[in-house]
Amino acid sequence: MNGNRFGRLFQVTTFGESHGEAMGVTVSGCPAGLELDEEDIQRELDRRKPGQSMITTSRGEPDAVSIKSGVQDGYTTGTPIGMVIENKDAQSGKYEPFITAPRPSHGDFTYSAKFGTRNWGGGGRSSARETVNWVAAGAIAQKILAAEGVEIKAHVNQIGDIEAPEVTWEEMLEHTEENEVRCAHPETAEQMRDRINEYQQEGDSIGGSIYFEVRGAPRGLGAPRFDSLSARLGQAMMAVPATTAFEFGLGREARRYTGSERNDDWEFGEDGDPKPVENDHGGIQGGISTGEPIYGEVTLHAPTSIPKKQKTVDWETGEEVEAQVIGRHDPVLPPRGVPVVEAMLALTLVDFMLLGGRINPDRMDGQVGEYRTDYHPSKPE
Amino acid sequence: MNGNRFGRLFQVTTFGESHGEAMGVTVSGCPAGLELDEEDIQRELDRRKPGQSMITTSRGEPDAVSIKSGVQDGYTTGTPIGMVIENKDAQSGKYEPFITAPRPSHGDFTYSAKFGTRNWGGGGRSSARETVNWVAAGAIAQKILAAEGVEIKAHVNQIGDIEAPEVTWEEMLEHTEENEVRCAHPETAEQMRDRINEYQQEGDSIGGSIYFEVRGAPRGLGAPRFDSLSARLGQAMMAVPATTAFEFGLGREARRYTGSERNDDWEFGEDGDPKPVENDHGGIQGGISTGEPIYGEVTLHAPTSIPKKQKTVDWETGEEVEAQVIGRHDPVLPPRGVPVVEAMLALTLVDFMLLGGRINPDRMDGQVGEYRTDYHPSKPE
Amino acid sequence: MNGNRFGRLFQVTTFGESHGEAMGVTVSGCPAGLELDEEDIQRELDRRKPGQSMITTSRGEPDAVSIKSGVQDGYTTGTPIGMVIENKDAQSGKYEPFITAPRPSHGDFTYSAKFGTRNWGGGGRSSARETVNWVAAGAIAQKILAAEGVEIKAHVNQIGDIEAPEVTWEEMLEHTEENEVRCAHPETAEQMRDRINEYQQEGDSIGGSIYFEVRGAPRGLGAPRFDSLSARLGQAMMAVPATTAFEFGLGREARRYTGSERNDDWEFGEDGDPKPVENDHGGIQGGISTGEPIYGEVTLHAPTSIPKKQKTVDWETGEEVEAQVIGRHDPVLPPRGVPVVEAMLALTLVDFMLLGGRINPDRMDGQVGEYRTDYHPSKPE
Amino acid sequence: MNGNRFGRLFQVTTFGESHGEAMGVTVSGCPAGLELDEEDIQRELDRRKPGQSMITTSRGEPDAVSIKSGVQDGYTTGTPIGMVIENKDAQSGKYEPFITAPRPSHGDFTYSAKFGTRNWGGGGRSSARETVNWVAAGAIAQKILAAEGVEIKAHVNQIGDIEAPEVTWEEMLEHTEENEVRCAHPETAEQMRDRINEYQQEGDSIGGSIYFEVRGAPRGLGAPRFDSLSARLGQAMMAVPATTAFEFGLGREARRYTGSERNDDWEFGEDGDPKPVENDHGGIQGGISTGEPIYGEVTLHAPTSIPKKQKTVDWETGEEVEAQVIGRHDPVLPPRGVPVVEAMLALTLVDFMLLGGRINPDRMDGQVGEYRTDYHPSKPE
Repeated sequence: MNGNRFGRLFQVTTFGESHGEAMGVTVSGCPAGLELDEEDIQRELDRRKPGQSMITTSRGEPDAVSIKSGVQDGYTTGTPIGMVIENKDAQSGKYEPFITAPRPSHGDFTYSAKFGTRNWGGGGRSSARETVNWVAAGAIAQKILAAEGVEIKAHVNQIGDIEAPEVTWEEMLEHTEENEVRCAHPETAEQMRDRINEYQQEGDSIGGSIYFEVRGAPRGLGAPRFDSLSARLGQAMMAVPATTAFEFGLGREARRYTGSERNDDWEFGEDGDPKPVENDHGGIQGGISTGEPIYGEVTLHAPTSIPKKQKTVDWETGEEVEAQVIGRHDPVLPPRGVPVVEAMLALTLVDFMLLGGRINPDRMDGQVGEYRTDYHPSKPE
Repeated sequence: MNGNRFGRLFQVTTFGESHGEAMGVTVSGCPAGLELDEEDIQRELDRRKPGQSMITTSRGEPDAVSIKSGVQDGYTTGTPIGMVIENKDAQSGKYEPFITAPRPSHGDFTYSAKFGTRNWGGGGRSSARETVNWVAAGAIAQKILAAEGVEIKAHVNQIGDIEAPEVTWEEMLEHTEENEVRCAHPETAEQMRDRINEYQQEGDSIGGSIYFEVRGAPRGLGAPRFDSLSARLGQAMMAVPATTAFEFGLGREARRYTGSERNDDWEFGEDGDPKPVENDHGGIQGGISTGEPIYGEVTLHAPTSIPKKQKTVDWETGEEVEAQVIGRHDPVLPPRGVPVVEAMLALTLVDFMLLGGRINPDRMDGQVGEYRTDYHPSKPE
Repeated sequence: MNGNRFGRLFQVTTFGESHGEAMGVTVSGCPAGLELDEEDIQRELDRRKPGQSMITTSRGEPDAVSIKSGVQDGYTTGTPIGMVIENKDAQSGKYEPFITAPRPSHGDFTYSAKFGTRNWGGGGRSSARETVNWVAAGAIAQKILAAEGVEIKAHVNQIGDIEAPEVTWEEMLEHTEENEVRCAHPETAEQMRDRINEYQQEGDSIGGSIYFEVRGAPRGLGAPRFDSLSARLGQAMMAVPATTAFEFGLGREARRYTGSERNDDWEFGEDGDPKPVENDHGGIQGGISTGEPIYGEVTLHAPTSIPKKQKTVDWETGEEVEAQVIGRHDPVLPPRGVPVVEAMLALTLVDFMLLGGRINPDRMDGQVGEYRTDYHPSKPE
Repeated sequence: MNGNRFGRLFQVTTFGESHGEAMGVTVSGCPAGLELDEEDIQRELDRRKPGQSMITTSRGEPDAVSIKSGVQDGYTTGTPIGMVIENKDAQSGKYEPFITAPRPSHGDFTYSAKFGTRNWGGGGRSSARETVNWVAAGAIAQKILAAEGVEIKAHVNQIGDIEAPEVTWEEMLEHTEENEVRCAHPETAEQMRDRINEYQQEGDSIGGSIYFEVRGAPRGLGAPRFDSLSARLGQAMMAVPATTAFEFGLGREARRYTGSERNDDWEFGEDGDPKPVENDHGGIQGGISTGEPIYGEVTLHAPTSIPKKQKTVDWETGEEVEAQVIGRHDPVLPPRGVPVVEAMLALTLVDFMLLGGRINPDRMDGQVGEYRTDYHPSKPE
């Protein structure tokens, strides 16, 4: 069991190392009849892709996805969707110095401690390159959710000590993709970019955080207790590389609130249903969605690969050595982390939609049990 | 699938409602040969028990555990351990007003929205009473871990705006259980208790947080990526009722640190092995344990059940009504949350110990494959 | 992981030993709104109960089930259903001679070899007493299936060399429960009973088989490949104690058929849909149900506990000893195995109904997402 | 969830359709340090490959495997092993007539009934081509088992009415691969081949069976009850395409045996341990391995694709039509099924070895927890 699987009914399985031959992901449990082509996946991969700007690694990966199965004539068939993304710009040679001299705060030591060996090129399996698989799978999840009216959006709300002011959902939709930092507040985005550049110039890196929001999630998602919506979001978000904190609703600040301050009274909504007056609960009560927006934050620590000189030891020679990580690395993670967080949110939510019977597990459009091949051109014309 | 299962190899399955007949938990995957009796379980249950002090609910539950299977002559047999804890002081009558008028920020509405019905007595299945099962199972996990040299300790480090100063591991061991707040810093504990009393007097409640630490966890625990140690701790901690934030290592603050500040250099430890100079990484690198202490924080929001008057609506009558929750409730959660957090840590870690081959899944003491019944008195003498 | 769990969405978890304090089973994933009381469970337990007739063990167990959670005012609430069945007539003393001298072809040796110990009273965890849990869980599954028009029936079609002629579905429904052998062919049942008595008199036991049939299973059940309907039925049936063969459709005889003989042509059925002209395929094609009856056979070897003298060795004394199993044992398994086979069929099928979206996982009657408590009297009147 | 996963700790995930772009399989949970190259996989794939002889389909697939990850410098790294096998000789055009006119006893109808569509080229996902993935994964499992002294062998013991006499383990090892039928009894193999040719000439196909045996499996494998060794073998074997019966030990014949006949007395073995005098129990007692050879039989029905004319209906036109399956098909399945059965046995057993702590889940050779990269040349020299 090596942690390459996510999801109960919408099942993702991944493989691949940073500087290996290819990355790959198999998605099982996608209902038949979803319109899907490589472009749907590619669009999301391009958002995560390295080399987008000055503040991302210069590694030149096209990240071109190839769908190997599960799609026919532009529609999913209900069977596993195999996808492969080849690694084109692997340059593992520069990692040789670290084979037996672990980089500070990387996975080098722990992988070797666990497995007795590791793929050492660029972090191998521990590299964030793995998230290309997550984004590919998440793109499919997002298409299904979109068809069900569930929308997901994230943006970078803090880099170092620069905090963005609160933004609206509309601002997130409008501004996030406009700038290379993926902060929905344009002026703050500029400050963030400048600050990142400063750290980069110093051969250093910086931490930051991502705010996320989900709209349109129906009431009733989440299995009580161990599989509560918050627990499963917790797992999904903490799996994002470099994440050190997950919060939803009032998050860490909830510790300072009294019950009467935090509790959300009920009123009747426009549709005559009970509706919380406020949303301090973050869209989840008793582990189950209320139908209000689900929102929260994820903190990502600074990239550990920095050109600045650090100290390490070589366990083979027994000597203390300098660690200077010269590779091509991001000076900050949240900008490229935004599509990763969105992907993990989508994978978590589509799974709960399936588990809660909101999506037919066999096919997108309706009644299970009819035989037919005619709703899309499955035979050559 | 209703979220009553935890663990991959050390498998916990629970049942029970707050004011139902009994709570119950089945533990599978406990190796044979662990010395275990009801007293081992009871000791932990007593720490979580209601009615311990002024700042806990006055519900009078003895929480007496009965082991129904899996233990013989004082030792586990390797087969499922069934435990039942009867509910003795159920008083569901006082919850009648809320059957169709959901209490603010409770699970009342979401359970009804999901299932079309709910056990409405005292929150039913959504009640934190469920955690009695977790603590019972966690007590077994902790016994196994103790045998392997893994120690777990938690204490309350913040209530409302009162923050405890940083304490040492030894202070946690010494002082936590001395006071009813379970804060390892005695003076702060007193302030916390007074503040809690104030809120209680006002008919209100207050949030807080728990700091936890794990010592002795071996290097190499955690499956890379989706099942990283941090991801699975994230799920475990976010499943704790009322949790709104999970952090490990520098947690939320990591966003303000540069790479050079946060990265932990390597030196040689006393045993000649590489050892991080500091522990800003919180004991986990690349999702896998480094052998350093694992530490973090969990934020619990204020109890939602408060005597203070709140507003709600009755979906049956269509009227706005007042919600005043008079039952017997805790004014603050972290003090009783400490054993719950410890239990969930133990369950998560023992699972990784089994998954990583550190504990023989079949028996506690050594070589699998020998037949014998003689290492403990399994036949009458 | 000790094999006490069954089902992916309809999840069964068991505990208990033959001569322990109690048996117990937790059912998760049962939708809310199913009318259910202890009598529904008890009815099935009584069919499996020991002491029913001359050809079953004389152990005097009332097998009275107590539902501890998950049911309210006569309806399921969607949360876990905990059930406990106390052991009343345990007499483990007579098993002392076998503690270190394994009974031939029992689980005595293998349990000790695996766990280094075992609960030795009456087979402990390896006893078929465990199946009381399966029948209790299966009773719930069968109620759900009945509401969906899926019917399950099994009968004993062979004991030793006495084979019953083929019977109709109607004969199975009418005659199976009329006689103590549970053979739907009354004359054969008498012969079987006599033959069983002969073996019993000789201090011996005899093998036999159970034929099963499922009617009304909709088309489209079964996940392709590893989780095909036939693969999961295979697991379920082979888990039944003493089973040595599982067959469906033509079963073992299929090896003698040509493709043209076995293939079932298609015609149009009364409803205008394609329908197989025959059912040599046993209701499953490509691992997925065709809508035709699913049928097959399970072979159960002779009970291993026999009064006849056998040879064994004592691994403590190093001596060869006689094994004479005097307890209260069944001379033949299929008669009491019928409800067990039906239960495992029901558990397998209800799981596939949930996985295939045929049953709403959250509630029995319709649309998920409405909040209400009013469709059954959930508040005192 | 669409049934493309097998194994609890040794996890296999597959994708691919018969005439799609590629087949693929990801193996997770393989310990680090296993010597492995593509040739290890290829050897097994070649045994399963089409076009081997007159009695296999003439489809010209090289079945060349490409390992994409998880192996470095000739050794596994403990991380997921991704493998891709491209389809080279796809000719889906000839399946057009069957798009809406299901072939008798194929998966055509059921896949369409379930998913509302299907990949219709050559059976798509329902094709036995999928087993190329199983054999690739099984090759890895077999290498691990071989290192642990567990050997697996299968041969064809019946085709139609031609039964092979019982053969020894040594005969299986020596003769099975000598002939195209993979029957370990050379004279019978010739008769089988001739009989197959007769059916083939008539445009028909024929059923058959495979006998398997496992030697060297340690005592104590198998989790009691639902996950007994026999139950999991049942699932694995029934998942093999076209399987209609699974038997172990005396199998179906056990119904005719008395307890005293079938029970295996205990004596002391050469090593002083208890040992069954005979092996009528098939190597499994109480669901757990005894250390004796595990043996059994699998029945595979005749291939459903036959040139002989059959009747079907077109659900689009509403007309009765003739089904004549002209593609390139095997006239009999067991010869190519032998490596598939061996693969599924290996996957099942390696999983139980891991679950039972017999193999270190992190690395092949010993103590977990040491960091090192030196036991194989992981850096360029």
